[in-house]
Amino acid sequence: MNQANTFYSRPVIALMTDFGIGDGDVGVMKGVIASITPDAHIIDITHNVAPQNVSSGAWILAAGYSYFPKNTVFVCVVDPGVGSTRGAIAMHAGDWYFVGPDNGLFSYVMAERSIHAAIHLANSTYHLPTVSPTFHGRDIFAPVGAYLARGLNDIFSELGPLIDPATLRRLEVGGAIRHGTTIDARIVHVDNFGNLITGIPLTMVPELYTASQVQIIFPNVGVTVEKRRQFFAEGPDDGQAFIFGDSSGYVGIAVRNGNAAKSLGVGFGMPIAFITSID
Amino acid sequence: MNQANTFYSRPVIALMTDFGIGDGDVGVMKGVIASITPDAHIIDITHNVAPQNVSSGAWILAAGYSYFPKNTVFVCVVDPGVGSTRGAIAMHAGDWYFVGPDNGLFSYVMAERSIHAAIHLANSTYHLPTVSPTFHGRDIFAPVGAYLARGLNDIFSELGPLIDPATLRRLEVGGAIRHGTTIDARIVHVDNFGNLITGIPLTMVPELYTASQVQIIFPNVGVTVEKRRQFFAEGPDDGQAFIFGDSSGYVGIAVRNGNAAKSLGVGFGMPIAFITSID
Amino acid sequence: MNQANTFYSRPVIALMTDFGIGDGDVGVMKGVIASITPDAHIIDITHNVAPQNVSSGAWILAAGYSYFPKNTVFVCVVDPGVGSTRGAIAMHAGDWYFVGPDNGLFSYVMAERSIHAAIHLANSTYHLPTVSPTFHGRDIFAPVGAYLARGLNDIFSELGPLIDPATLRRLEVGGAIRHGTTIDARIVHVDNFGNLITGIPLTMVPELYTASQVQIIFPNVGVTVEKRRQFFAEGPDDGQAFIFGDSSGYVGIAVRNGNAAKSLGVGFGMPIAFITSID
Repeated sequence: MNQANTFYSRPVIALMTDFGIGDGDVGVMKGVIASITPDAHIIDITHNVAPQNVSSGAWILAAGYSYFPKNTVFVCVVDPGVGSTRGAIAMHAGDWYFVGPDNGLFSYVMAERSIHAAIHLANSTYHLPTVSPTFHGRDIFAPVGAYLARGLNDIFSELGPLIDPATLRRLEVGGAIRHGTTIDARIVHVDNFGNLITGIPLTMVPELYTASQVQIIFPNVGVTVEKRRQFFAEGPDDGQAFIFGDSSGYVGIAVRNGNAAKSLGVGFGMPIAFITSID
Repeated sequence: MNQANTFYSRPVIALMTDFGIGDGDVGVMKGVIASITPDAHIIDITHNVAPQNVSSGAWILAAGYSYFPKNTVFVCVVDPGVGSTRGAIAMHAGDWYFVGPDNGLFSYVMAERSIHAAIHLANSTYHLPTVSPTFHGRDIFAPVGAYLARGLNDIFSELGPLIDPATLRRLEVGGAIRHGTTIDARIVHVDNFGNLITGIPLTMVPELYTASQVQIIFPNVGVTVEKRRQFFAEGPDDGQAFIFGDSSGYVGIAVRNGNAAKSLGVGFGMPIAFITSID
Repeated sequence: MNQANTFYSRPVIALMTDFGIGDGDVGVMKGVIASITPDAHIIDITHNVAPQNVSSGAWILAAGYSYFPKNTVFVCVVDPGVGSTRGAIAMHAGDWYFVGPDNGLFSYVMAERSIHAAIHLANSTYHLPTVSPTFHGRDIFAPVGAYLARGLNDIFSELGPLIDPATLRRLEVGGAIRHGTTIDARIVHVDNFGNLITGIPLTMVPELYTASQVQIIFPNVGVTVEKRRQFFAEGPDDGQAFIFGDSSGYVGIAVRNGNAAKSLGVGFGMPIAFITSID
């Protein structure tokens, strides 16, 4: 089997925003990147993060970043505070670099990886000559990401002053808390198929498929899900929802050939209780 | 005129899924590909195949694959049976390679091209180290596609055991059947403009523009379309639907500056009868 | 700081269409491009221009093209007249090349840049062998763009006969006209966040933030906006709309953490009056 490192390796820049794809904003960011680092391989994570939903963006990034090549630069912009005093940062954590607003968007990454360094993007040499107060994605984050993808640590140290990673803003991620046989958590994502992803890491519930019974209760709406399946095609024919171990590494709820969010009438952010019974 | 082969030629990987673009799933597949084959040129066909609609995905692939460079690897994932016993395959057909579930997604390709070889993706050397039961796009199809794009036939033969192409699952494609002057078929696609594409290949109706009259009847809803036009701007001003030869190579129905699906109240999968009169 | 020109520079092709991303049409165009110019860097501006809305496409292109690298080839297809007698053109204007229908899609570019040359795409050597009457994006514009991206001026002169730029079709762009302290204009774009972008360039209203008062009135619906802010996070807490200088270079209207189009009940194309008071 050939090894990847025998191939020409372009710098990889992964983009995630809430800009949608109906405007030209994402294309403009790519134009800026291609102007600075012509050989960049630009990969879209998604641009359809729910507008201004930092928490949702943080989760989508969390589910994917570890599958990207070493040294990938993630440029992430879900930024309701653009133009205000919120900080603009670059962070070197694990094997990757992250560029974006200091508003919690990298909370899962910070919880999961060691942070080698973080920096405040104060050096305007690496920004566009004119910075608008409303589009830092184009004017700051894209050019910084493009320069960083070229030079990695050599550029990182030039982007601005180092800051203490402990001061970076963090969201309460996942929020799964165990109380005996119950775990309180929330729905952190609803995917394209209507599958509900909870904030409970599979590593927290090794008993998922071995416990005599598991339940997920939505206390606010009085819904309970009790069935368990390993994959979708195994789901009940009658459209009943079931619990499964999602490929993102979190506990999920699905309906076979259906949409669990619609069937159950639940959605993003709802509190849940995960209850295990061991006979 | 310069020839393309004087340029540096990256391996091309074309992706088609029903994952949508609101999650990070497609981006994660690209991260996996870039990790294995850094110089890959990844092209999206679409990720908005109607969820779990294998038949619709098969048609979209059919309308486009022949425009891609020789040796393009198509990684296609519309896969309601993921995790079950449905097979995972790679196929060398015509000038291209196809990777995905064995559920009929490549039915048009199989009908149109000679299949040089097909293989069952049993060799886990070419999969990610951990394969989840619900995301083979990331864990099997993307890495297999990436390795295949690098090595083509050298890799193909290593992916697993050869299987008899005759055993591959096929959908009834197009379904156009001629009975004298009538062809029974179905609507196989509704495009972004609301144009209705039938399963009738233009090669089956050379008389499209020369017959004294043609009609498309939707027997279920009592709708008949009789006008014919070569292109949209030629369509009737009054919003009446017309029959045309679609650029996909199939007979279509459109409304000028309008949406034929909405105007006629018809949609994907509906049966039609195409009737030719020759005076 | 390293210079971009020390890197391998791929030809950049930027695509904008109204094809949506649910069909495979955009992917097919990219397949055609990759077949002709394998090392092309293809960047999507957007494919979700409102169907057949040339004016909206023209504005989206205007807001972004100047951020792309020198010699980028823009292939733009919003083309309700496809197949009719409308011309198909390539244009060299400013530092870029533009390929598409002659229907006004490049009106802002023509208003803002000097046009070095324009050409009628008559030389079928640079088209696909078979040209359908309904998909010139695939059959003419994509291959022409791919050849042009390789050869720039050497190819440009071969694409067909030169035409007088003065004869190219132009839309009335922006449409901002000043009458004393009032400017009449229209809403030219509604972005992903519901922000309303007017046709008034910021360069036309240097007094935006210094005048004692500014108002935007929607005479048709009796709505007036009077507040001014520099960025979104500064917006009123109570959901009132405010006027701001959009990053596109035009005057905009937004609601903090909200959707101005929905809040105000206004949208694309609506006439406005911008009124300045200087005490």
